Amino acid sequence: MENFSFYNPTKIEFGKDKEKNIGKYLSVYNIKKVLLVYGSQRVKKDGLFDSVTNSLKENGVEFIEFGGVISNPILGTIQDAIKIAKKENIEAILSVGGGSVLDSSKTIAVGTLYDGDVWDFFVGKKVIEDALPIFDIITLAATGSEMNGYAVVTNEKTKQKLSIWSSCIYPKVSVINPELQKSVSKEYLVYSASDIIAHCIEGYFTAKIQPTYMSRVVESIIKTVIETTEILIENKDDYSARGEFAWAATNALNGTTTVGTKDFSFPNHLIEHSLSALYNVPHGAGLSVVMPAWMKWYYKQNEAQFIRFAKEVFAKNSALEGIEALENWFNKIGTPTRLNQFNLSKENIPEIIENLSNQQEFSKEQLEQILNNMI
Amino acid sequence: MENFSFYNPTKIEFGKDKEKNIGKYLSVYNIKKVLLVYGSQRVKKDGLFDSVTNSLKENGVEFIEFGGVISNPILGTIQDAIKIAKKENIEAILSVGGGSVLDSSKTIAVGTLYDGDVWDFFVGKKVIEDALPIFDIITLAATGSEMNGYAVVTNEKTKQKLSIWSSCIYPKVSVINPELQKSVSKEYLVYSASDIIAHCIEGYFTAKIQPTYMSRVVESIIKTVIETTEILIENKDDYSARGEFAWAATNALNGTTTVGTKDFSFPNHLIEHSLSALYNVPHGAGLSVVMPAWMKWYYKQNEAQFIRFAKEVFAKNSALEGIEALENWFNKIGTPTRLNQFNLSKENIPEIIENLSNQQEFSKEQLEQILNNMI
Repeated sequence: MENFSFYNPTKIEFGKDKEKNIGKYLSVYNIKKVLLVYGSQRVKKDGLFDSVTNSLKENGVEFIEFGGVISNPILGTIQDAIKIAKKENIEAILSVGGGSVLDSSKTIAVGTLYDGDVWDFFVGKKVIEDALPIFDIITLAATGSEMNGYAVVTNEKTKQKLSIWSSCIYPKVSVINPELQKSVSKEYLVYSASDIIAHCIEGYFTAKIQPTYMSRVVESIIKTVIETTEILIENKDDYSARGEFAWAATNALNGTTTVGTKDFSFPNHLIEHSLSALYNVPHGAGLSVVMPAWMKWYYKQNEAQFIRFAKEVFAKNSALEGIEALENWFNKIGTPTRLNQFNLSKENIPEIIENLSNQQEFSKEQLEQILNNMI
Repeated sequence: MENFSFYNPTKIEFGKDKEKNIGKYLSVYNIKKVLLVYGSQRVKKDGLFDSVTNSLKENGVEFIEFGGVISNPILGTIQDAIKIAKKENIEAILSVGGGSVLDSSKTIAVGTLYDGDVWDFFVGKKVIEDALPIFDIITLAATGSEMNGYAVVTNEKTKQKLSIWSSCIYPKVSVINPELQKSVSKEYLVYSASDIIAHCIEGYFTAKIQPTYMSRVVESIIKTVIETTEILIENKDDYSARGEFAWAATNALNGTTTVGTKDFSFPNHLIEHSLSALYNVPHGAGLSVVMPAWMKWYYKQNEAQFIRFAKEVFAKNSALEGIEALENWFNKIGTPTRLNQFNLSKENIPEIIENLSNQQEFSKEQLEQILNNMI
């Protein structure tokens, strides 16, 4: 076990109808005016917007709405929102949507209290010291953003997808109502499964010190994701499976899986962010292509852990059988495992390598080997 | 999954030498004067007291010391400490010791801000609304008290061992340095293993709704405890095993294992508290006697979960084989499994039943059946 500090101040309100109390949760913090950030008009059609705004009105919380956040959220939208938040003297950000809406909201919360361009924090020019309080109702299980201090944003001009972290941008309260997540398409359900598994395996396979207890926690999450994804593909209304899927997603990236580990990295996310930034590939779909390719390239560097993974998760005996089982499972549930499923081919590889030229983790030759595994 | 709120505001500082920063951690909260609560003089002999007080002095934190807290802490000691804390205008409680010292500290933190007798909160006469901030350096892994809002105290006059819970008594910062825990005797190591397992199985076996994901988390903790206890019996200096054992102990009772469960109870703790209150049996030692006895009596009410336990934890196929495997493991590590190991016999059973006469969970006949399994 390595030394660590563990602190996660986000309060989770989990369960049916919890979004109807959002005004009450805000009132605890004495908040009177929020920027209500959302994505598509779907939140209005399905009644969620009304539920939320009714609760705000009942609790005397004024709101300014800001819709139109897209998947793989872009900086331009966020900069527009920051202008409004500054002009309107917004006191908190309320995110209603999936990970993209929440990551945008976190960035808006930082940018509203900063005079310069919020991208400064992503490129390391500035360190986050303050942010407006953030609240959210998360409508998609995958990102883990509801219980951590990360936000990932794409700069559409520079084609960079980068992240920020700060203890200031943990949400104060996150509402997770699994029922709200059942409107997610089958396609995004399986992409989410891939994303959650990716969050787990980054530390699990790359950490120089990996406590066995933390390996067990990771395996618990992955087994739960596999089991509940299969149930939800058959029956999207299975509340119990939906609930376990959602809570596993939260736990995959709220700090609990990497406690006491040492020196882990995020190679799968690093490579995938290029696919998303260059070709607007959905994040989870990109990850299910990257993971098996990276695993086949990497496994000999930590073979014992890959054998453990094969045994514990898929009851297989070798590293390669475990990787194959994961890839087969991705194929079975219908999330991509090859670049051609995005209409990309060997010809795109130089462009992806070029996009990754600023990272330190891989040489061009290594990237080429990994990317060739995706063909 | 049942609706739930999850919030755990305790910051964990885990690892080697972390206790040497305690003054700094207190300073973040602007605290200038603490009551330093501890148990035996051992903390002075082994240098921990000096490390802690040096850090306090370096950070300008004044302290009044209060030693002498005993295992199964008693109300009288706590009442004495409360008088001192009131008289000295103490701003926070700093606990240096195991679960008994910390539970005493939590109770002192509540009692210092209350005019009446602190026992009022234990018997339900009063609801906790405020407490002094609590900080701790935990020197024994078992109780989970370092990351939860519980405190258990024995009223030596009424022979009652009762508990309080409040969000006000989560420690602000808990220091867990596994190295400090290696001075724990082999005896208390195995009692601790029993206590941690008991914390896990209460919800695991009794909950009316038990998400599979949470079962997996519980099994991860129990498997880790079994594995690391065996390592530590052989080699008390194995830091990595000591660390995993300590963190598993924290997680067994910090709220993560019962998320989304419904209607669970604490029957093993209920019965054990009588053994401790009547005969001053060490809590963990009492629990390893109670658990197999209760399990043999109860398993048919939730046999599927007992079969799951048998398979996942001990690779056995039936409920009874699983219970037997646990009992055998307790015998193997040397924690008691029968009343006669405390010099108690069938003749004590009426007295234990009488002590439990105020509880609602069991009839006298049921208690007799369970207690007979301990002979």
